[in-house]
Order: sequence, then structure tokens, then C-alpha cells
Amino acid sequence: MKFEILTLFPEMFEGVLGSSILNKAQERELIEVETINIRAYATDKHKQADDYPYGGGAGMVMKPEPIFRAVDSLEIDEDVPVIFLTPQGKTFNQKMAKDFAKKERLVLLCGHYEGIDQRVRGELVSHEISIGDFVLTGGELPAMILVDAISRMVPGVLGSDESYIEDSFYHGILDYPQYTRPQEFRGLEVPDILLSGDHGKIARWRRKEALKKTLLRRSDLLEEVELSSEDKKLLAEIREELKKEG
Amino acid sequence: MKFEILTLFPEMFEGVLGSSILNKAQERELIEVETINIRAYATDKHKQADDYPYGGGAGMVMKPEPIFRAVDSLEIDEDVPVIFLTPQGKTFNQKMAKDFAKKERLVLLCGHYEGIDQRVRGELVSHEISIGDFVLTGGELPAMILVDAISRMVPGVLGSDESYIEDSFYHGILDYPQYTRPQEFRGLEVPDILLSGDHGKIARWRRKEALKKTLLRRSDLLEEVELSSEDKKLLAEIREELKKEG
Repeated sequence: MKFEILTLFPEMFEGVLGSSILNKAQERELIEVETINIRAYATDKHKQADDYPYGGGAGMVMKPEPIFRAVDSLEIDEDVPVIFLTPQGKTFNQKMAKDFAKKERLVLLCGHYEGIDQRVRGELVSHEISIGDFVLTGGELPAMILVDAISRMVPGVLGSDESYIEDSFYHGILDYPQYTRPQEFRGLEVPDILLSGDHGKIARWRRKEALKKTLLRRSDLLEEVELSSEDKKLLAEIREELKKEG
Repeated sequence: MKFEILTLFPEMFEGVLGSSILNKAQERELIEVETINIRAYATDKHKQADDYPYGGGAGMVMKPEPIFRAVDSLEIDEDVPVIFLTPQGKTFNQKMAKDFAKKERLVLLCGHYEGIDQRVRGELVSHEISIGDFVLTGGELPAMILVDAISRMVPGVLGSDESYIEDSFYHGILDYPQYTRPQEFRGLEVPDILLSGDHGKIARWRRKEALKKTLLRRSDLLEEVELSSEDKKLLAEIREELKKEG
């Protein structure tokens, strides 16, 4: 799949796109990421991409023409999502990552300064997406977040070693605790059960720890996930234990 | 303030830290950002930072010793937050950005692979923070998000031109629409009121548009924000208009 990212700061993407799984996925041609400098589509000789807001106020607003011209240059069909990253959008989540991973092309538009001319949002943008309730300098970091989360869901991007099946949220609940060597470190030991070699018991312990963490930290997730009868038994045990601990 | 970022991929940060407001803030010595390569603190000759999980399962787990030794090297007091970025943490928001901006030092720990040894989380980490309900390759992008959002709240980082006062969420509601030149573009015009020069009317129109967008997209925010009597009047008007539009 191909990501086309419209931005005033293409150099921001280099370190992230050149690293780790995203780099490997590009080398293996599973994903393609192109950054397009909006400023290159400005029409005046100063390559001005922003201007003062009508009606006054602080800050600068991104002008409509360079963005319209940049999007024109992509020659996209109507069914290609054009995503504007903004704290005013719908909050991004793992389900959206899975759905977008089925698309062949995604256009990501990064705002900057105080905002972007409303006509761009009205005419060009098909989705407004937020990554959370906080304010950033621009849409570049949110765009990288989308590229990472969505690419991981593209078949083949993750090797079996990096399987997403056990990731947080894949099953709708939080992860169990992980331990690796050494067995004892600064007086802190790995739980005995993980050394037992009893795979059935280990699986049960992990599921119980995952359910317990989810219950304590994000009980909202438990309402949306389908729990097996074994899960319900484990949750009853957890609640009983927590009651005893006061 | 100083950010110290523990990561296996320091090169991922270069493009983002070298751009725009974060770069200026570092040049003006308002913030300092240091990336520390965890691998430099591995003790064996292969500089191994990860190992197989006890109890089996896919993926690799980050080993405890290199991380403990890297944190030791920082010689931090107990009151310095050590933040682990994980989808299992508390969801980051603008209020947390403002609170963390008051600290003199923040340590950000980036996980990678399937996870991190639980003893690190139990002993070293003071805060577990998530930027949202989605899975990423590592904690590096979330760490950049925190550096950006928090730095913007450090006094002096934003100039008057980039004032955060009008940003989304600063007042707890979404932004009003922005327009800039040209006045007419591809048949799309700037709303007349913004050209009127009547500052009182413009302010009222903007507040109403901001309240309307918040009501339609994020009515949950209206429950948490203090509304003036003028705001309540505007909201009543908006509800009336929406009813008429059906």
C-alpha cells in the first residue's frame, strides 16, 4: 500500500521512516511512503504557504491553493481517503488501523501553524482524525503514528517473530507481564510459574494477569470484548482476590 | 527543562527534534533533549538488549540490566518522573502536558519488540503513559509526541505569533474555522462576516462555530468545560438552528 504525505516539513519524517519495521517494509516493497512538500506547489515567487487569518487573531493559516494543487497532482480517485490530522477529528484507534490497512492508497495531510483554510477541509478532506486530546505543533507526528500503526496491519509487514496476535488491543485487552533473563536481578526474581515448563498453567496465569491489569486500569475495555466462560471464571477469581487484599 | 530519552533507536529522533518549534526551543536553551542509547549499557560483548521471554511466546523482551544501568547513569532524584510509554498506560492529554511542563527533568523510556521486563516497570518506572488505543512498533513516536506537547507549554517556547491560547483544547473546546487569502478560490468564498471588520461580531461568530463543532463532534468536552452565560445562549441558538435544519 502507498502512503502519500502532504507536509511543509518532509525532513521530519526521515529518521522515523528509515528505522526498524517501517524501513524493512519499504525495502520489501510491502509499503511505499512518499512525502510531498506543499511549499513546492505555492504559486507566488516567495513560495508562501501561509497567510494571515481573515477576521484577525494570532498565528498564520495555511493557504488553500498550494494544498489544492498538491492534491490535484496526486490524481487520486474518489475512493482514496484524504486524511487531515487534527485534534478536532475522530479519535484514532486499532480498529481504524485495521480498516485503513485494507486500502491501496492513503493521503495524509499535515497542518501546521494555527490552522488550515476551511475550504481545504470542506472540499478535499474525506476523514478528520485525531490521535488524542492534546495539542501538537503540526500533523507530522500524528501522520507518522498512522503510518506505523496501519503498516503493522498490512499482511507480511510483521514477521512471525513480531506477531501482532499477542499485541495489546489485538484481543481487546491489555498485555500480560513479560520477563526475560536473568532469572534473578538485584534481588528481583522471575515468577516461578514461568520457569515451570507447564504450558497450560503458564497460559492460564498470563490470561489472568492480562485480565487483572485490564480490570484495574481499563475496565471500559472489558465491556467491549467477548469473554469466554474461562475468562469469566478468571475474572471472578480476580475480584475475590482483590476483595481479600482490601 | 530537560528531557532524557532512553531508546534503542536514537536516530529516529533526529528529524523531529531538528525541526520547527522544537529546534528553536533547543537553540534558545528553553528545552534540552538528550537521547541515550540503551544498547550502550548492555554488559555482554554482543551488546544484547533483548532476549527470549520466560514461559515462551513470540517476540523478544527488553532485558532489565541495560535499562537499570542506563537509568543509574542519569543520577536522578526520586521526584524526577520516569515515564514508560505503553498502550497499557494512562491516556495522555493536554492537562498532563501542562502538569509535566512544570518539571525540571523528565525521563522517557521507550519500549520496543514484544515488551520490556516487568522488573523495569515495577522498580524504575513512576508513570505509564499511553497516547491512545493503538499499537505501535515502539515507544519512540509516543515519546516525541510528549516532548512536543509538553515543550509547547514551557513558558517562552511559543512566540506571541504561535500563542497556545487559541489552540484546540486550551479552552476545553474545539477550534473555530479559519480562512486566509484568497477571498474567493475555485468558487468558494470566505464568510462575509470575517471581512466585516466588526470585531465583536467576528468574536461571537467564532465562538458560536467553535461551540457548534464541539457539540456535533465532541459533546463530552462540553460537560467538562465552564460555560459563560453568553456560551449557554449561543448553544441554545445552535440547538434551535439544528432542529430547524432537521
